Amino acid sequence: MIIVMKHSAAAADIDTVVKQVEAMGYRAHLSQGTERTIIGVVGDNRPVQPHNFEMLSGVEQVVRILQPFKLASRDFHPNNTVINVRGVVVGGPRITLIAGPCSVESRSQLLETACAVREAGADILRGGAFKPRSSPYAFQGLGEDGLEMLAEAREETGMPIITEVMSPEAVSLVGQYTDVFQIGARNNQNFPLLTAVGRTHIPVFLKRSMMGTVQETLMSAEYVLSGGNRQVIVCERGIRTFETATRNTLDINAIALMKQWTHLPIFGDPSHGTGKWELIGPTAKACIAAGADGLMIEVHPHPAEAMSDGAQSLKPEKFAALVRELRQLAPALGRTM
Amino acid sequence: MIIVMKHSAAAADIDTVVKQVEAMGYRAHLSQGTERTIIGVVGDNRPVQPHNFEMLSGVEQVVRILQPFKLASRDFHPNNTVINVRGVVVGGPRITLIAGPCSVESRSQLLETACAVREAGADILRGGAFKPRSSPYAFQGLGEDGLEMLAEAREETGMPIITEVMSPEAVSLVGQYTDVFQIGARNNQNFPLLTAVGRTHIPVFLKRSMMGTVQETLMSAEYVLSGGNRQVIVCERGIRTFETATRNTLDINAIALMKQWTHLPIFGDPSHGTGKWELIGPTAKACIAAGADGLMIEVHPHPAEAMSDGAQSLKPEKFAALVRELRQLAPALGRTM
Amino acid sequence: MIIVMKHSAAAADIDTVVKQVEAMGYRAHLSQGTERTIIGVVGDNRPVQPHNFEMLSGVEQVVRILQPFKLASRDFHPNNTVINVRGVVVGGPRITLIAGPCSVESRSQLLETACAVREAGADILRGGAFKPRSSPYAFQGLGEDGLEMLAEAREETGMPIITEVMSPEAVSLVGQYTDVFQIGARNNQNFPLLTAVGRTHIPVFLKRSMMGTVQETLMSAEYVLSGGNRQVIVCERGIRTFETATRNTLDINAIALMKQWTHLPIFGDPSHGTGKWELIGPTAKACIAAGADGLMIEVHPHPAEAMSDGAQSLKPEKFAALVRELRQLAPALGRTM
Amino acid sequence: MIIVMKHSAAAADIDTVVKQVEAMGYRAHLSQGTERTIIGVVGDNRPVQPHNFEMLSGVEQVVRILQPFKLASRDFHPNNTVINVRGVVVGGPRITLIAGPCSVESRSQLLETACAVREAGADILRGGAFKPRSSPYAFQGLGEDGLEMLAEAREETGMPIITEVMSPEAVSLVGQYTDVFQIGARNNQNFPLLTAVGRTHIPVFLKRSMMGTVQETLMSAEYVLSGGNRQVIVCERGIRTFETATRNTLDINAIALMKQWTHLPIFGDPSHGTGKWELIGPTAKACIAAGADGLMIEVHPHPAEAMSDGAQSLKPEKFAALVRELRQLAPALGRTM
Repeated sequence: MIIVMKHSAAAADIDTVVKQVEAMGYRAHLSQGTERTIIGVVGDNRPVQPHNFEMLSGVEQVVRILQPFKLASRDFHPNNTVINVRGVVVGGPRITLIAGPCSVESRSQLLETACAVREAGADILRGGAFKPRSSPYAFQGLGEDGLEMLAEAREETGMPIITEVMSPEAVSLVGQYTDVFQIGARNNQNFPLLTAVGRTHIPVFLKRSMMGTVQETLMSAEYVLSGGNRQVIVCERGIRTFETATRNTLDINAIALMKQWTHLPIFGDPSHGTGKWELIGPTAKACIAAGADGLMIEVHPHPAEAMSDGAQSLKPEKFAALVRELRQLAPALGRTM
Repeated sequence: MIIVMKHSAAAADIDTVVKQVEAMGYRAHLSQGTERTIIGVVGDNRPVQPHNFEMLSGVEQVVRILQPFKLASRDFHPNNTVINVRGVVVGGPRITLIAGPCSVESRSQLLETACAVREAGADILRGGAFKPRSSPYAFQGLGEDGLEMLAEAREETGMPIITEVMSPEAVSLVGQYTDVFQIGARNNQNFPLLTAVGRTHIPVFLKRSMMGTVQETLMSAEYVLSGGNRQVIVCERGIRTFETATRNTLDINAIALMKQWTHLPIFGDPSHGTGKWELIGPTAKACIAAGADGLMIEVHPHPAEAMSDGAQSLKPEKFAALVRELRQLAPALGRTM
Repeated sequence: MIIVMKHSAAAADIDTVVKQVEAMGYRAHLSQGTERTIIGVVGDNRPVQPHNFEMLSGVEQVVRILQPFKLASRDFHPNNTVINVRGVVVGGPRITLIAGPCSVESRSQLLETACAVREAGADILRGGAFKPRSSPYAFQGLGEDGLEMLAEAREETGMPIITEVMSPEAVSLVGQYTDVFQIGARNNQNFPLLTAVGRTHIPVFLKRSMMGTVQETLMSAEYVLSGGNRQVIVCERGIRTFETATRNTLDINAIALMKQWTHLPIFGDPSHGTGKWELIGPTAKACIAAGADGLMIEVHPHPAEAMSDGAQSLKPEKFAALVRELRQLAPALGRTM
Repeated sequence: MIIVMKHSAAAADIDTVVKQVEAMGYRAHLSQGTERTIIGVVGDNRPVQPHNFEMLSGVEQVVRILQPFKLASRDFHPNNTVINVRGVVVGGPRITLIAGPCSVESRSQLLETACAVREAGADILRGGAFKPRSSPYAFQGLGEDGLEMLAEAREETGMPIITEVMSPEAVSLVGQYTDVFQIGARNNQNFPLLTAVGRTHIPVFLKRSMMGTVQETLMSAEYVLSGGNRQVIVCERGIRTFETATRNTLDINAIALMKQWTHLPIFGDPSHGTGKWELIGPTAKACIAAGADGLMIEVHPHPAEAMSDGAQSLKPEKFAALVRELRQLAPALGRTM
């Protein structure tokens, strides 16, 4: 951490800052420039808040030097984390495909979709039983009935399952069924929830918030990791920008950057990232080309009748065609599929 | 809702859309333009999802006509909602001041601040006992001990209190102490939490998300209202934009717009809205000038020692000076204070 | 400027950076932390580009310490710049009102509006003769005929005039008529144009870009100032964000912040800042409350027939009512009007 | 265009709107919903401004149905536009590589880079002679000397050249040298400049603005096209968002979407799109995977000594390695290279 003093700062101001740095157990390193004095805070000051210095008289700016996350960082864990989800290996050279409907709507809808995506080449089945909906009047999911249907689909197809958990008190119930906890974009900074899943031993699929920076996203992963659960997958699913032609802006840079900053597996979600089924194909390929370890894609046998997110779901035959194209692409990128 | 067909849509495509509209219980109204056919969906279609039509063959675009919220709308409730918080009237001509520390840090810190803000003219005391922190290594709040201290400060000063609740299972505990539930920006779309506070009879202070549109913000208010709790205050606290010179961008337009769209009291939070104590004064006045019914301002007796958000807290004497300025301003805006 | 070395940087990497710093004529100041080495670049390094160091082996991050602008900064020019526009004093205690139609559409429209805004209390008349339009098929302005009409309206009302100049080669022509050059938001980083108006002695009204940071905005002012023209007014007119309920997001923080960072007069434009005439009143008051030295407001006698921007124009009688309210407000803020 | 009336609109309000629609030469089509009346404007109303109706009493909202561009649209021109740049075919199945330094800095720097990128497989040489710089104190380019050097490099390598033109009066000079005009991101809405290059017969490489929507970008292309110049290439180069870990956010969705909306060739610029040379490789591949017809990449033999944009330039050997990887990728995407 570096503290930049104002042009007008007095010697006494500098002195006060240095004393506060030392009182916190760090060393202060002064550097006298031509227009500003700069004070370096020497030591592992990740827990220190910049505001503790910003409030002192004569301070202009406080700059963090260290990334605030540690367990998620490649600095301290250079090798890729590999996670075994009931036999599906995530984070290795093989690209992982998660597919299924946005919401579990009925036993038949789920089983039909599960068989179709399995057939097409999916590795893990997704499906929402508890749904975060921006309207209180919209379909909120089937709840535990949905979880039972997911378990049945797993039985039938052999695919592990992933489903969303929305509150700390539901972690225990959902944990009885699911192979992977999904933390949705709106809960990326739901800290009690992150703490709760961090205490389990079930892998966590953490979606980036639509307005979370890469740094904040990895800090949310750090919450789970610091609770003792080292099995975290991070998923880019589009951020909110001024562009309205697409539902979100898939941040392809973030996929490439997170592969450098962290050892955790990085996924892309072209369904939410674009909000338009016509764009899923090209952006799914782009995610893989940028280095993603896997994809999450929404598939629905009858999208026009879907209770949620139909516009960004592929029909099973379109999904199958996309998988064939991805399989052509993977070897050209040094990956398997 | 209006469905715009593609230039290339076939008569059969139009037919299919019309049939789906009718199958959902609405009337379809066709309008044949020179380049596009447009189908109006007649009836209260707030619960319908645009994607149900976007997926149909030949559909180009689906446009919502009705605001998705109803209980929060001035269309159906033209008069301002006025909320009585233990004798403090919120939403009337008098401007309400909420002040206090970001976090409750100790009994003495809280009581010192409470007395100071009371003396300066605050109406309601704020203080966080459970704190949402982006780092798992940062101070997480005093929990129930903090709630006890808030209750004691209320006893001592006579001011009602407001504190944040972060998860559905904490609603019952926090509700035993607080006069107003604060829902933080990161929980604005925590739907299980909104549902939980919607079942109580305690007023809710709902902060806009840093990434939430005005429409989504009022939909989150609708969640609480539709649960039966009609006492909701909405607070603009800055949104996230490309500008980095301030922590957030206080959306002054949203204050003026929400006063037109909804009957609920609208507040401004210049502490979070700017992230810099030097900007609190001018932006607090701007909120009031734009029509806000009240302000939430962070005050700390020793900001440099604050455990959170010191950089955006005023010292008590600066807060007192600001209140004097606001009192000069209020009559020129037709308000009292 | 501070250069942060990677955790993994070798001694030779540090050596190379130090040598490059010295080769550029600066002193290097090393600070050895527990996890990173930091190298301070001592001297007025405003012209140095961070990328010159970012490319060197072992460099993690380069942080600018000094604001890149100097002539625009309060550090070097503490007192407010006051500009005399044909007898109208801008930047002093008195608030300045610029009003008029978006576009000059006809002699009668302009004269009718000019007389009305003069009567209501405006100080300077605005009107576009050359119009930047996002569609090549839209009305592009009357050109020199419009300039003639503006000059006639000045003659008739005694008000100085302001009009937009869109390209370097038009500076000479527009300069023969106008009292103030307006640089539109889309031209905020049109550097040849900034250079051209910087060579004149006519005051410049510089609108912030809808995508420009406060720092970039003041750098654009620096372009004009460094050309020798010290009469620059900076105008906040709304930035582009994810919010779509308003045309732009008026950045009220920027008004308060720029008053601290620069000595130049700061204006607000609630017409473009909101895009909705119903929001002009509350946000105009907010601009003044936040410290703006003046306002630019679009007024049109028949907005529904306006050739541009009718939705964000006030009718003359609504403008007159707003001026009366602002005159009540000004003294409560220590200003006159 | 659709006009939505307010809940409270009177019959007379509706009547006034209908009359105005008809006075403009369109037909009005009324649709009476349960809560709102909707008026469709029938006819090619691209030139109509929504504000002409938004100002009328009782109007709530005006929704555009037609894309405002026509010449750029696939609706009216289904086949891909293919452009021949001195023998290099752009917009066909073969992927085009534009490479070279950000700025032309010297004859030797340019020739060295030109030979290296030619050798590696580039098709067209880029280099800035006139540079838009956000600081008036930064290197502004070599001007006409730079153009001469580019011409010499073309002579020597056989590669066509592309260079930026920044103002209408420079179009004639730059046009004497260049094979393609580059319009930079900051000039995407410099309408006099778009008009000027639209009158030439030299292909135009139009960069998206860092805050331009896809629709606005294609409207800027429409400016050039409507001037008579049908040779336009559109380039996604990153947009400005809240994310600060990368210089811009490369909008991969926009590449996929523009390929659907327009027949013009679409390029990606991973250098500006990320601002970090370490991210150029993965995002270049992502652009191609998403359907881009070509790439623009900055290459500099000694990036640390570059006068601009060194941090986002590849060294020639890294560029050569990337080209080899792209050549492996192209066939898996049905492209050649």
